[in-house]
Amino acid sequence: MYRTNTCGELRMTHVSKEVTLAGWVQTIRKFGAITFVDLRDRYGVTQLLFGEELTKQLDENALGREFVLQATGKVSERSSKNTNIPTGDIELNVQSYQVLNRSAVPPFTIQDDTDGGDDVRMRYRFLDLRRNAVKKNLELRYAVNRAARNYLHAQGFMDIETPFLIKSTPEGARDFVVPSRMNPGQFYALPQSPQTFKQLLMVSGYDRYYQVVKCFRDEDLRADRQPEFTQIDCEMAFVEQEDILSMFEGMVKSIFKEVKNIDYSERVPRMTWEDAMWKYGNDKPDIRFDMSLCNLKKPGSVYTNKKDQNALISDAGFKVFDEAETVIAIAVPGCSEYTRKQTDEITEWVKRPQIGMKGLVFIKCNADGTYKSSVDKFYNEDRLKSIALATGAKAGDLVFILAGAEERTRKATSELRLEMAERLGFRNPTEFKLLWVLDFPLFEYDEEGNRWVARHHPFTSPKPDQISTMIDNNPSIENASEYLSHPYAGIKANAYDMVLNGNEIGGGSIRIYQRELQEKMFAALGMDKEEQLHKFGFLLGAFEYGAPPHGGIAFGFDRLCAILGGSESIRDFIAFPKNNAGRDVMLDAPSTIDGKQFDELQIKLNLK
Amino acid sequence: MYRTNTCGELRMTHVSKEVTLAGWVQTIRKFGAITFVDLRDRYGVTQLLFGEELTKQLDENALGREFVLQATGKVSERSSKNTNIPTGDIELNVQSYQVLNRSAVPPFTIQDDTDGGDDVRMRYRFLDLRRNAVKKNLELRYAVNRAARNYLHAQGFMDIETPFLIKSTPEGARDFVVPSRMNPGQFYALPQSPQTFKQLLMVSGYDRYYQVVKCFRDEDLRADRQPEFTQIDCEMAFVEQEDILSMFEGMVKSIFKEVKNIDYSERVPRMTWEDAMWKYGNDKPDIRFDMSLCNLKKPGSVYTNKKDQNALISDAGFKVFDEAETVIAIAVPGCSEYTRKQTDEITEWVKRPQIGMKGLVFIKCNADGTYKSSVDKFYNEDRLKSIALATGAKAGDLVFILAGAEERTRKATSELRLEMAERLGFRNPTEFKLLWVLDFPLFEYDEEGNRWVARHHPFTSPKPDQISTMIDNNPSIENASEYLSHPYAGIKANAYDMVLNGNEIGGGSIRIYQRELQEKMFAALGMDKEEQLHKFGFLLGAFEYGAPPHGGIAFGFDRLCAILGGSESIRDFIAFPKNNAGRDVMLDAPSTIDGKQFDELQIKLNLK
Repeated sequence: MYRTNTCGELRMTHVSKEVTLAGWVQTIRKFGAITFVDLRDRYGVTQLLFGEELTKQLDENALGREFVLQATGKVSERSSKNTNIPTGDIELNVQSYQVLNRSAVPPFTIQDDTDGGDDVRMRYRFLDLRRNAVKKNLELRYAVNRAARNYLHAQGFMDIETPFLIKSTPEGARDFVVPSRMNPGQFYALPQSPQTFKQLLMVSGYDRYYQVVKCFRDEDLRADRQPEFTQIDCEMAFVEQEDILSMFEGMVKSIFKEVKNIDYSERVPRMTWEDAMWKYGNDKPDIRFDMSLCNLKKPGSVYTNKKDQNALISDAGFKVFDEAETVIAIAVPGCSEYTRKQTDEITEWVKRPQIGMKGLVFIKCNADGTYKSSVDKFYNEDRLKSIALATGAKAGDLVFILAGAEERTRKATSELRLEMAERLGFRNPTEFKLLWVLDFPLFEYDEEGNRWVARHHPFTSPKPDQISTMIDNNPSIENASEYLSHPYAGIKANAYDMVLNGNEIGGGSIRIYQRELQEKMFAALGMDKEEQLHKFGFLLGAFEYGAPPHGGIAFGFDRLCAILGGSESIRDFIAFPKNNAGRDVMLDAPSTIDGKQFDELQIKLNLK
Repeated sequence: MYRTNTCGELRMTHVSKEVTLAGWVQTIRKFGAITFVDLRDRYGVTQLLFGEELTKQLDENALGREFVLQATGKVSERSSKNTNIPTGDIELNVQSYQVLNRSAVPPFTIQDDTDGGDDVRMRYRFLDLRRNAVKKNLELRYAVNRAARNYLHAQGFMDIETPFLIKSTPEGARDFVVPSRMNPGQFYALPQSPQTFKQLLMVSGYDRYYQVVKCFRDEDLRADRQPEFTQIDCEMAFVEQEDILSMFEGMVKSIFKEVKNIDYSERVPRMTWEDAMWKYGNDKPDIRFDMSLCNLKKPGSVYTNKKDQNALISDAGFKVFDEAETVIAIAVPGCSEYTRKQTDEITEWVKRPQIGMKGLVFIKCNADGTYKSSVDKFYNEDRLKSIALATGAKAGDLVFILAGAEERTRKATSELRLEMAERLGFRNPTEFKLLWVLDFPLFEYDEEGNRWVARHHPFTSPKPDQISTMIDNNPSIENASEYLSHPYAGIKANAYDMVLNGNEIGGGSIRIYQRELQEKMFAALGMDKEEQLHKFGFLLGAFEYGAPPHGGIAFGFDRLCAILGGSESIRDFIAFPKNNAGRDVMLDAPSTIDGKQFDELQIKLNLK
């Protein structure tokens, strides 16, 4: 061992002990004839004092930043203590030292507020990982991993490894594939998730399974997506939705306690998908703050159980509202005194192509009880007041109203709500609010193919009382324009998402476990019998030999860590992430392979 | 929840409680008007009693083996108890039941001694996994996983995930590669191990790293190899060999304690590679029994520090020994009374092509103190006695002597030693003997390329006092026939293997951490500068920024579990293994992919 202690360990109780430390040179400060060096390792920083003799040696062979140094000496009390670090009471009076390895000058400073840009830090990720900010993230990641495992173990779950070289069954996302040398012309696929395997394990009787496991999706990478990512993957047999909700609510609370020392004791609220969309325009609402949507107008074909408040805005001759499918308002707290410049800026913001609205109507609810609006021409103060009250606005608030096509307007209002919350500091990264979103639609309509696609995945069960709706009806859509009136459009999934601070951190469902229903599902998705058997014959087969009722959930581990760490970026919580082109710039991967590899795999390039 | 209790849980204390169980029908026995059903789940088996009324119902809708059943009733004391199972005192007096799912007749019985052959069990692996024998293996695997993690956590190790989509740098084994759609013409590789990443983590200052991680090698599969396998992968910084040995000796002992309740308190013995080869003909000797090799004759070029006992056999006019490079004997306990038929059979055994010897000489050390040999013509009884004594044979033992070329003869003797031990029951699967094998040669000679190859891997450091031998000498081999006299031939690696019962369960080394030495190593393996930079530029670069001394080890997790489970086959300890052609016969993978996938990846087949 090159050391007797770590650089984070020494205290006053160690004074006059002889110790050896090893670590990296953080800083070098020369004061006349003596030299101070801050030595850093994973555990902390300790000040080394080099006396006159050794300082002379240092003058001949200068140390540099990030040199690897081993130093032996006596621990002594510092004359001027540093209360900012745990080792600040002492220093090491160096008697001898050895440079274990030299370092070139690093391309950026190894500090929390580094001068290195993203590119150079990724290229030299091994140096970036030395920074305390990054180390804290990986430590948090390990703590979450450990807390999840401990909870699941205590609950009788078993970690069972599922294979990585599996069969390509692209449904939705693209598979990464792996040519098989031993089976020329054939390919393995890397798993998008262990979904079918964990279901087989339920058929096999392992009624509580978990894995912290890498998954792979060959998708065009939007910001903050990675081609390989990690899931906490879980499945249980002989359970209903309620059992899963309470089990995994428990897991996340246990992680909060272990990792953040937060007692999250209140029951996690539950919201149907329909309510979430109605109240927040979003299936993963951030409920740290209110600003819920006031649905002034909506088309008859959607949210058929909900009532809009069209009377508040109709018959005013305001064509924008009259001609819009949907009109939605939100009340933004404390912003009634926004200047023209500010409201203009927000109007521009909603007109950006990513949001896509044509304009923004506002009502200022002034502190003196008066109302002032951008549509005063059409609505008198009484009507403005009624609208404002409907949104829940109080004196001092600012009401924003968006109007347009249903889907776009709802989404835009949700985006505006989040944007205003961000600006107003309502999205506090140290506050955590969990939410279950339930009762998703089982199917989504795919316009292009005039067919159904599974909203969650093809293994999700409908609600028990809707199984017969699914079995008894023909899935094909005769009249594309009236797809909403097809019986399948109303089927709800026995599925649930866990939402944390406006991010989906986990999602799952009760699964289909009857062959007939599973075949009907595949058929609804446009798979004929042959394709079903080719892709999922093993699963259909398994359902013939006593498959139990079962369900599960998978948590996005990278995302969960990022949110707990108060960050929006999962990359910061992955030791060796890839960039948006799927490249590892440190390794320079992917890269070319050699002719022998092509020969052995019996493939060749076919570049366009 | 479909149950209130599991099938392994109910005891006398539960009598007269109302409970609901759910599980699989193991057996159905009808006795007149009543029916007994054994219901099985992951936790055990409970007897269900169906009274007259329910038995009538059963007559109408017969249950079958492996049906999934939910039954509610009162727990009652059995009239005739079954002491073989923990629930044998009670039974469930069924009041109502529900068939949750039916089952076709399984293709083999779900029992320890199943009637299913290997092929059908692999095809229906989801049923095979229901068998208690397989379940016990997966439970043991999980227990080992958990014990290893707990130990490493307590020792301050951090689980840090390394990437799966990396760069192809084939050295030795072949990489599996993954075409990149986003970077046409380029490929990722799947990691053969996280070797370079864990070294980078040491450079980054994470001085204790571990991972239980999948690794991939595209090799022709010998029996009991898998294309994907799991390692317990570990690395430490600021350590020397001694630190690693004691840390991981501790880990394995902790696994023994946690998983098998074995107190393995004695220090694990250590043996140099040279001694292992000299005494056992094998670099992973099984030391549960002795039968060590008696080196009667060896060529001068190898084991130059060891002395053979050629005087015992020379000058007898026995050409087989005189002309052989190597002559080795072992004493097999208690076999002096082997018949001619038995010795003939063993002679045939050593002549099999896998062993490849031309014949076998034996000396019977009779109980009466006389000696009888197959070479009486050449050696009188005194000489036979001397040879026998040299082997350590006692009265009643049988000495076998093999002669031939050095490498083959040594290997054959080792094989014969293991074979005889197997036949004599010396390889007791419930006895565990650990061993460290140290000081491997750093290089092996590759005849075909007349070059050096790394015995462990290219990142292994030579012994500290031999670094200069490596730096100061030119690696190229002028004279192929005298490669043994090249300075590199004598360099020992700072490497270690952990051996358990004759199996290598873990191996590792102290690593090179100096760029100059690493470049010299790559050069010795025949890599020019350009290739070095293309393949390992990131690592060479990292060594310029303060790489600390470091080393590590990786355990073959599948193998470790198999040995602890008393089995020779790793397949039994993998939930979804592949067969010897690398196929998953349950999934039918690998398989063809569709034209769209080829198009998107811009590759095509080039079948021979």
